[in-house]
Amino acid sequence: MHRSRLAGFIIDCQTEDLDSAASFWSAALGLPLRLEDDPGYRLLQNAPGDLHVEVQQVQHASRVHLDIESDDLEAEARRLEALGARRVGPVKRWIVMEAPTGQRFCIVRPQSKDFSAVANVWNKEGT
Amino acid sequence: MHRSRLAGFIIDCQTEDLDSAASFWSAALGLPLRLEDDPGYRLLQNAPGDLHVEVQQVQHASRVHLDIESDDLEAEARRLEALGARRVGPVKRWIVMEAPTGQRFCIVRPQSKDFSAVANVWNKEGT
Repeated sequence: MHRSRLAGFIIDCQTEDLDSAASFWSAALGLPLRLEDDPGYRLLQNAPGDLHVEVQQVQHASRVHLDIESDDLEAEARRLEALGARRVGPVKRWIVMEAPTGQRFCIVRPQSKDFSAVANVWNKEGT
Repeated sequence: MHRSRLAGFIIDCQTEDLDSAASFWSAALGLPLRLEDDPGYRLLQNAPGDLHVEVQQVQHASRVHLDIESDDLEAEARRLEALGARRVGPVKRWIVMEAPTGQRFCIVRPQSKDFSAVANVWNKEGT
């Protein structure tokens, strides 16, 4: 048995100026910015539903990608593979996946304050 | 004075089989599907924070795009242009924009049940 949930989304920005990009998205969405320990990220606070929203500096083309949080990354990757997703690879502390329709998304460690209470529970058969 | 807020996100799928795409995303995110009047869309219900999440059939490459809801689409487009976004064009009942970092997003009519209570309020100067 393991749990997972939509954690939020990351706004991937191909930019040399992450602060300008983060300032735009903060003002556009009306979500206040917070600096993070990792210089490649800026957190957008107070998103609806306690979602985790970040602006990230990337080398690839700009996009938006979803994050799924789980208390068992490997079990969640296997569940998503059984649904038709493809494992692109582990990156640091998360797993990059690709949906059957092509969008990349990530499986990350639990981030929500109330993760255990609100996450979906999956049994070994992934149902 | 007008209001706006992050409404949610649309999972754009370049696919001939929208039902399969919607089934994947429904199972992946653990959000139940609902049919909609428009055959090109499937709603994913019960997203955190009353966010509006849909799977959409598109002709362009698959991606995820954000929606901003507003009670004044034109004023919101001008506010976002002042922040550096570019107006791509009106499409049906919404406006397509492009962020300085390249991501497309849309300005849509209010969708949240409690829009007036939770949206950001902007004065004429966009602050």
